[in-house]
Amino acid sequence: MTDSPIDPTLLERLAEVSVRTGLNLQPGQELVLTAPVTALPLVRAITRAAYAAGASLVTPLLTDSEVTLARFETAGDETFDLAPGWLYSGMAEAFDRGAARMAIVGEDPMLLSEQDPAKVSRVGKATSTAYKPALEKISTFEINWTICAWPGESWAARMFPDLPTGDAQAKLADAIFSASRVNTDDPVAAWDEHNATLRARTRWLNEQRFSALHFRSPGTDLTVGLADDHEWHGGASEAQNGVVCNPNIPTEEVFTTPHAQRVDGTVCSTKPLSHQGSLIDGIEVTFKDGRIVEAKADKGGDILRELIATDEGAARLGEVALVPHSSPISQSGLLFYNTLFDENAACHIALGQCYSKCFLDGASLTAEQIAEKGGNSSLIHVDWMIGGAETDIDGITADGTRVPVFRAGEWA
Amino acid sequence: MTDSPIDPTLLERLAEVSVRTGLNLQPGQELVLTAPVTALPLVRAITRAAYAAGASLVTPLLTDSEVTLARFETAGDETFDLAPGWLYSGMAEAFDRGAARMAIVGEDPMLLSEQDPAKVSRVGKATSTAYKPALEKISTFEINWTICAWPGESWAARMFPDLPTGDAQAKLADAIFSASRVNTDDPVAAWDEHNATLRARTRWLNEQRFSALHFRSPGTDLTVGLADDHEWHGGASEAQNGVVCNPNIPTEEVFTTPHAQRVDGTVCSTKPLSHQGSLIDGIEVTFKDGRIVEAKADKGGDILRELIATDEGAARLGEVALVPHSSPISQSGLLFYNTLFDENAACHIALGQCYSKCFLDGASLTAEQIAEKGGNSSLIHVDWMIGGAETDIDGITADGTRVPVFRAGEWA
Ligand SMILES: [Zn+2]
Ligand SMILES: [Zn+2]
Ligand SMILES: [Zn+2]
Ligand SMILES: [Zn+2]
Repeated sequence: MTDSPIDPTLLERLAEVSVRTGLNLQPGQELVLTAPVTALPLVRAITRAAYAAGASLVTPLLTDSEVTLARFETAGDETFDLAPGWLYSGMAEAFDRGAARMAIVGEDPMLLSEQDPAKVSRVGKATSTAYKPALEKISTFEINWTICAWPGESWAARMFPDLPTGDAQAKLADAIFSASRVNTDDPVAAWDEHNATLRARTRWLNEQRFSALHFRSPGTDLTVGLADDHEWHGGASEAQNGVVCNPNIPTEEVFTTPHAQRVDGTVCSTKPLSHQGSLIDGIEVTFKDGRIVEAKADKGGDILRELIATDEGAARLGEVALVPHSSPISQSGLLFYNTLFDENAACHIALGQCYSKCFLDGASLTAEQIAEKGGNSSLIHVDWMIGGAETDIDGITADGTRVPVFRAGEWA
Repeated sequence: MTDSPIDPTLLERLAEVSVRTGLNLQPGQELVLTAPVTALPLVRAITRAAYAAGASLVTPLLTDSEVTLARFETAGDETFDLAPGWLYSGMAEAFDRGAARMAIVGEDPMLLSEQDPAKVSRVGKATSTAYKPALEKISTFEINWTICAWPGESWAARMFPDLPTGDAQAKLADAIFSASRVNTDDPVAAWDEHNATLRARTRWLNEQRFSALHFRSPGTDLTVGLADDHEWHGGASEAQNGVVCNPNIPTEEVFTTPHAQRVDGTVCSTKPLSHQGSLIDGIEVTFKDGRIVEAKADKGGDILRELIATDEGAARLGEVALVPHSSPISQSGLLFYNTLFDENAACHIALGQCYSKCFLDGASLTAEQIAEKGGNSSLIHVDWMIGGAETDIDGITADGTRVPVFRAGEWA
């Protein structure tokens, strides 16, 4: 008999929080759930929680890392521009009919690190292209959606390479449960309180109507223009179907849309970025008129430059987000190699697609109107961390007034 | 460390036979693969074999029995007429674009036996309705497809309830490997020889052009009229995309389309039928002018009658198949509770949908033309076993001549 290293009570609570607080799944609503097959215990708990919350139908789509690897290791070179478009168009159909969407992450973040980066990039681009119609319904918040995490064994082994498997998984599970605020007696109340704090921050930022943010820290001197009629969001968010959901479990950030043509200066990453199974570390990038004009990295520079070359929008920003250095995930001192966690440990920016949600009355805007206001568009959306203990941020208003926003990594 | 009760070499061979002989997967062809999540080792082996055979993309769709049970145990009563139509329409799109289809069976055949039969039947009907457009591309052989089996633990436990889990699984694995002809040094050669034998039988039957078959055995006196321009098939079959595949691994049957209006007499089942998780045993049914006018069973009579009431075609025959009593699966003496195996142990008939393939030039016929010739149409296709050691069959030609086909369970 083996004891699971994952506390079953906390796992049930994570399922409950993901369904109730994360999705806010409505009675009669269908649920499309993607997950790595190793996350089956969480998939089952979420399925039970979803039906208990009144789900009409729960359909898990499970992926397997060995199946993924078999492709890279065995398939013919001419096949790497293919993606299962039929599956993504099926998902888009489900969203059109009102289904909610949940994704469980938990794969080995370095799964593809030994594979040919050109093939990895071709598959990434084919997948993004095929998935775009479905993803747009998520990024424009047509439906309620959420992402949560499963403490996968291989993921845990990357984070804690010196620990035995069970201990590593137990440590990652604890970190996930704690960051997801389910290690308290009343997780739903904890989330309500947390959402109120984030709401206070976004309300203040929205009142300021800054036209730009100025980031300063060692190696960084970056002015990020904000899009016209930008709106700050964080925590709970109302989807176009009227459902208030928490799209990320956990979340610590408040974020908005930068102006794709008004970003200037140089910025250094403060944490490594795990992208499609490879690590990019020590990024230094220079922007001019919103576009990256120079990009290097101590590690993974080629992958960074391939990423930036994906399309026109991949060289511009689609998100800027503020997270204090005292955030619990930052204080854990852990590097998760996973954006869902690492982006909540530091201020960050994202290359690529913006969220139309982050505009005043964003749901009613056309793609052209969003572009006119400075919203970026791209096949990619890749977050990377630029904040730390020494980060200072000023808000700059239209008339040039400077307002302290962050000092030494904390809200000013 | 645990040794798997399943021989890895034979598992690799089963994967190879399923891809090469079962599907005859073509270089550049996509593969859609459905399987229970417990079959992951076979899914992975098939994925590797498929990419080695030149597959452009392999997409497994995995289902989990606990997720299925959670629905029956927790979902609201109003939700049981729903099916993931978006997923099935995605699959139909994949088939339209030329994907091949493989299904791995291996679930607990009694999974739903404790659930409310009305809910089970509603889900079955909703699924059949939603799946119909995709299934038609399979049943009309637009594409190459195949079904093979994984020795699932819970399935093995049903078959060998007195054995420890590992032993039961090992025994089921042996039975599957042997029936699938992969326990020989050259499985592909064994399949070629087996296909030649089945081809000789179908050639002889097609030359006879019988207008009916007359079955006699204890409790059975049944005349099964054959459809106009019916054609016998068995073993390898050419799909409309030109690919010769073996749709069932294993297979022992030769089969054709009965005339939906010309079936008369009484017939008893010779083996229990496992349908949607319930067992129907001791079936006795009387046909008049092709339609069931009386149906009873020693066990599961209600389920049988619900099944027959699915739609008009569910009370008529869509298949008649001949299997000698000496077939290896019959000689194993095992009851698998799974049609893929049990239908290959005995002569059988199927209620419901016919195969358009089983007509001369069937691919060019419209649904109306098939119906005119006597082909049946229905949401269901359920095989049940009527043959045994004492089965005699006569072929009856248009002028009334009788030709012995089976005597005492064997080819005459
Ligand atoms: Zn972010
Ligand atoms: Zn982001
Ligand atoms: Zn059959
Ligand atoms: Zn059949």
